[in-house]
Amino acid sequence: MNAPETPSLFDLNAWSARQLDAIEQALSQWVANAQNGFVPAGLGEAMRYAVLDGGKRLRPLLVMAACEAVGGNAEAALRAACAVELIHAYSLVHDDMPCMDNDVLRRGKPTVHVKFGEAQALLAGDALQALAFELLTPANGSISAPVQAALCRLLAKAAGYQGMAGGQAIDLASVGLPLNSAQLHEMHRLKTGALLQASVLMGAACGAASPAVQSALQGYGAAVGLAFQVVDDILDVTADAATLGKTAGKDAAQDKPTFVSLMGLQPSTDYAQQLLAQALASLQASGLGHTGALQALADRLVNRHH
Amino acid sequence: MNAPETPSLFDLNAWSARQLDAIEQALSQWVANAQNGFVPAGLGEAMRYAVLDGGKRLRPLLVMAACEAVGGNAEAALRAACAVELIHAYSLVHDDMPCMDNDVLRRGKPTVHVKFGEAQALLAGDALQALAFELLTPANGSISAPVQAALCRLLAKAAGYQGMAGGQAIDLASVGLPLNSAQLHEMHRLKTGALLQASVLMGAACGAASPAVQSALQGYGAAVGLAFQVVDDILDVTADAATLGKTAGKDAAQDKPTFVSLMGLQPSTDYAQQLLAQALASLQASGLGHTGALQALADRLVNRHH
Repeated sequence: MNAPETPSLFDLNAWSARQLDAIEQALSQWVANAQNGFVPAGLGEAMRYAVLDGGKRLRPLLVMAACEAVGGNAEAALRAACAVELIHAYSLVHDDMPCMDNDVLRRGKPTVHVKFGEAQALLAGDALQALAFELLTPANGSISAPVQAALCRLLAKAAGYQGMAGGQAIDLASVGLPLNSAQLHEMHRLKTGALLQASVLMGAACGAASPAVQSALQGYGAAVGLAFQVVDDILDVTADAATLGKTAGKDAAQDKPTFVSLMGLQPSTDYAQQLLAQALASLQASGLGHTGALQALADRLVNRHH
Repeated sequence: MNAPETPSLFDLNAWSARQLDAIEQALSQWVANAQNGFVPAGLGEAMRYAVLDGGKRLRPLLVMAACEAVGGNAEAALRAACAVELIHAYSLVHDDMPCMDNDVLRRGKPTVHVKFGEAQALLAGDALQALAFELLTPANGSISAPVQAALCRLLAKAAGYQGMAGGQAIDLASVGLPLNSAQLHEMHRLKTGALLQASVLMGAACGAASPAVQSALQGYGAAVGLAFQVVDDILDVTADAATLGKTAGKDAAQDKPTFVSLMGLQPSTDYAQQLLAQALASLQASGLGHTGALQALADRLVNRHH
């Protein structure tokens, strides 16, 4: 095993550009592309609109980085990367709907239900979730059955009632309530943390990771998942809509509990840096060699400005 | 191989009662049951309300019957049966929402969004879809990885844009439009046929079905799936709400194209019987022995009164 690369020596921009090329191309090919067979007109457009040409693709990059760290099957990782992004994209579509957050702007564009209507947005979200599992189970032999099954298992659990959907339900029930720190952590562990952690574990599942490595990556994923939300809460207060590409200050306006409202701004910033240190320590503990991308992604995620 | 049993000699009631016992028990155990870990309060209730204590469980019965016909893994079939029912249940929850059919009555009870609110209904549907794939991928070794992967593949495709969700989108776009026969068939092949056919194929995937057997069961599933919708259209005209457990005459009131509006009542009835004959002929062609349940289910489905 090699000593872990340091983030400063890893060229994240060049690495990300290579990965994003492959990811964007794969998404464009796989998401409701009429070249793969009949696609109902409005539905296909809504699905593609929800997924293509937007998003930082953080989750797919985590999948690719984790796969690289364990030396896994790159084709499996690309499918897993796209599948995770489809789950993320569907959750945004449904979350933006009038009965949820009623948001009209996403990544600087009208949200899906504003552009295509609520019914089509509902269906597009549903179809994107199904497509995620379709991508993970190709019949062409490119991914072994045990890897397909493991990827579906990780994604289903992270997306469901004990993951993302469960976190959304807690979020829904918590507006205007004085959550304590433990409750806020639990909500975010489920709402955003579960899928971010699953991205890391799905990348690792594309290779043969020992239980010790899996456990270390689980620690990395948990820290990164939580840090992501802490930073999101900070940026909701400190950044403006133009930089964020979405409505800023919404959490405070809706009286939603956040890390900033609970801990204060500076302690939240310190907390994010602590979580970054935890994530990097977990990588060190994994004993894996090629963790440059995982390190650099954690660093960028915590030190981002939008 | 044995000669196919004739439906008249098969005791469907006794067989169904045995299967339904197992299916209801499994659903109650697996759907957002707090014994399996933390479940967000409102979400878990909405999920269980959407799934338990209601429904004819036609799709699960088709899974169990097909598994029996090929002598497959009964544990896999039970999970597949529940997974298909979860997809069906989630589609009803979302379909009933105000932005879709805006229905307030389902199986004689208030629909999920009426009882729990729209946001919770949206989330419950989303979580049920994820749970379907979770059920198919247990980590306990009870189902081999190739079977897990095959089940996920069949279900994902049948639920997605080239299946159920796609059919819903066509349905959405077709209200008030004069669909021709080919378009109406295509809509229903996707909207309800795909999941019914997948039920049969998932049951078969729990065993080792030859390509010829798979193809025969595909024919059975297609005929049964189409017959189901033709009979639904007939009952929408001939039955009343108390018998149906849902609002009757809705299709005509909403000016939706149906087989009855396109072909007339008697020709639709004849067509359903033709499809039943096709389904039975496919079973005969499969050369399978224990097809009694599959035969009897097709017969009951076409000759039902609600």
